[in-house]
Amino acid sequence: MAKPEFFPVILAGGRGTRFWPLSRKAFAKQLLPLNSEQSMIQETAARLLPLAPAENFWIITNQHLRPAIGRQLKQLPRKQIVAEPMGRNTAPAIGLAAFILYRRNPKAVLGLFPSDQVIAKEKKFRKDLAEGIRLAAAGDNIVVMGVKPTRPETGYGYIEAGAAYKGSATRVRRFCEKPKEDVAKQFVAAGNFYWNSGMFLWSAQTLVNALRQNLPNTAQQLEKIAAAWGTRKFEAALKKFYPQCDDKSVDYGILEPRSAAGEEGSNIFCVPADWGWNDLGSWAAHFEHRMAQGKQKHNVINAGDTFLLEAEGNYIHAPGKFVAAVGVHNLVVVDSGDALLITTLERSQDVGKIVKYLDAQKNSKLV
Amino acid sequence: MAKPEFFPVILAGGRGTRFWPLSRKAFAKQLLPLNSEQSMIQETAARLLPLAPAENFWIITNQHLRPAIGRQLKQLPRKQIVAEPMGRNTAPAIGLAAFILYRRNPKAVLGLFPSDQVIAKEKKFRKDLAEGIRLAAAGDNIVVMGVKPTRPETGYGYIEAGAAYKGSATRVRRFCEKPKEDVAKQFVAAGNFYWNSGMFLWSAQTLVNALRQNLPNTAQQLEKIAAAWGTRKFEAALKKFYPQCDDKSVDYGILEPRSAAGEEGSNIFCVPADWGWNDLGSWAAHFEHRMAQGKQKHNVINAGDTFLLEAEGNYIHAPGKFVAAVGVHNLVVVDSGDALLITTLERSQDVGKIVKYLDAQKNSKLV
Repeated sequence: MAKPEFFPVILAGGRGTRFWPLSRKAFAKQLLPLNSEQSMIQETAARLLPLAPAENFWIITNQHLRPAIGRQLKQLPRKQIVAEPMGRNTAPAIGLAAFILYRRNPKAVLGLFPSDQVIAKEKKFRKDLAEGIRLAAAGDNIVVMGVKPTRPETGYGYIEAGAAYKGSATRVRRFCEKPKEDVAKQFVAAGNFYWNSGMFLWSAQTLVNALRQNLPNTAQQLEKIAAAWGTRKFEAALKKFYPQCDDKSVDYGILEPRSAAGEEGSNIFCVPADWGWNDLGSWAAHFEHRMAQGKQKHNVINAGDTFLLEAEGNYIHAPGKFVAAVGVHNLVVVDSGDALLITTLERSQDVGKIVKYLDAQKNSKLV
Repeated sequence: MAKPEFFPVILAGGRGTRFWPLSRKAFAKQLLPLNSEQSMIQETAARLLPLAPAENFWIITNQHLRPAIGRQLKQLPRKQIVAEPMGRNTAPAIGLAAFILYRRNPKAVLGLFPSDQVIAKEKKFRKDLAEGIRLAAAGDNIVVMGVKPTRPETGYGYIEAGAAYKGSATRVRRFCEKPKEDVAKQFVAAGNFYWNSGMFLWSAQTLVNALRQNLPNTAQQLEKIAAAWGTRKFEAALKKFYPQCDDKSVDYGILEPRSAAGEEGSNIFCVPADWGWNDLGSWAAHFEHRMAQGKQKHNVINAGDTFLLEAEGNYIHAPGKFVAAVGVHNLVVVDSGDALLITTLERSQDVGKIVKYLDAQKNSKLV
């Protein structure tokens, strides 16, 4: 079998409000250099580029973020950085790419990738992905990349793996929503549960068929948009028909109905892996991640220079400034120039509430 | 008796390092608007101006602070803002003014005033001061203004009042150094102890005589400098002779030896008063003071706008910025543009250690 054409579709429409005040509507989490000198989306593209030529990349984002993404990813084809006229969740986003690519090559394999996750072990990631791509190319298969859980996390969905298939791949028994803590503990203990990474692989044909079957209205709208691709009417078609798509995720709109066919009948597979995966869901998660990287001791600080006296476990971001911390612990202090966030690691999940407040205030400068 | 000529001498050479990062070598605590829209030294001058014409004011400071003081107090005679070539404590500072004014009018009354204190009850202050001025003019008397203590503070010196004299004035039995807490409690309970406000009153003649008797070397140097006052040689004389003065405070250099003569013989008097006096010795003291003013609830915040969620008892200074505080308590966060201080109210006394560190690093930009 010839090597399948592979098209990475990177979803980059999220706001990542929990990284306020650094994340903004026009400069979301995926644009921030949270893991290295590169931004999250630059890292995402860089780790996929060995698997597909730049001209195969698609990015689905929104109008606010599109300019900054274009500036950060100059090597990708600008016209394939598509701005949704309004957020319509993951099924229409990947579906749009599927209908366009289906017209070119129904057997092309599409991969759906979040744009704001850390993957420490890139080689392992690409090896597992290559296995997934082969599996997705082999027929009417849907492949989900499963992350080996390292803790009973209640913030993620889980995948229950079923019978072994080829290589490390297994069939998928079921998808489980975010569990309570005791259930999460059982999942981790059982050994055949994986975190749903949000990364899926399938051929254009498989996805188009799945959309037609499970989300027929969405499929109709996307077909009309795809017909205009490459013409001057594309933007108008996108603007007109995309908002009419159903606001459904891949998980609820496609995988759940399909998995009703049972482990044997659904043709959904899981490629499980241990990649040092981290979705950096909050300042606290970012703090933990930076501490684990081991480059800084006691505190994670981005500043010009520092004086620290009995100060440990703090996340401080004040680039260029002299930071003096005395007798403080487990704080998060982020200076964005126009705003100053002061909270604790424990409360850093609540940062989204600040953005909600600013949204309600129609404070467009700070969100 | 004619109303005595009164000359306020404001001491403004201190660094006030505990207000770092706002206070700097060239912009010390007395230049900060900690109590109102006006700076501390502007308030000090304003509350004394009803008692003496502007041309009677003297300010003893240092070369770093002189330019900023000149800008803040344009109504005072520029040549009477004197910069010590090096810090020589309070006795030479007030002594210099005494020797200069002695040549003009030996009976002139000089008042020594710190430049960085809050006095809430200004009318009461001026009434008590007027009584002190009359007493100081009446002979070879030294008058110290005593603040009625409101708590067993261990950070101040105390004055033990003796026999009643005229009006509210008493003789002074002794000066007590900063006491331990149990002793401070006894002082407050006894009822005849006062905080040493650092404000003294005496005639030029009395002070000149006291210096000649107790600090003869200092008196000699000051006499040489005073002889050059009003000539082109003044700055050179100041530079040459002032550093040769003894590094002594008024308390140790003059009052202690004199009080050895006993309550009756020393002619030292205390005018006790209740002025809402506060020396704002730290960010925590400033926080308490601002809370007591009652203009802000729960937190003291200087910022553009705020979002507060379960955040109380914090002192936050980030002018112009949007400040979001979530789940934090009793913190001090001060953003000076080039530096960011993060500490607690409890630890705010340790801010001076940061300045010591920066001094040791020869970091002239940040101190």
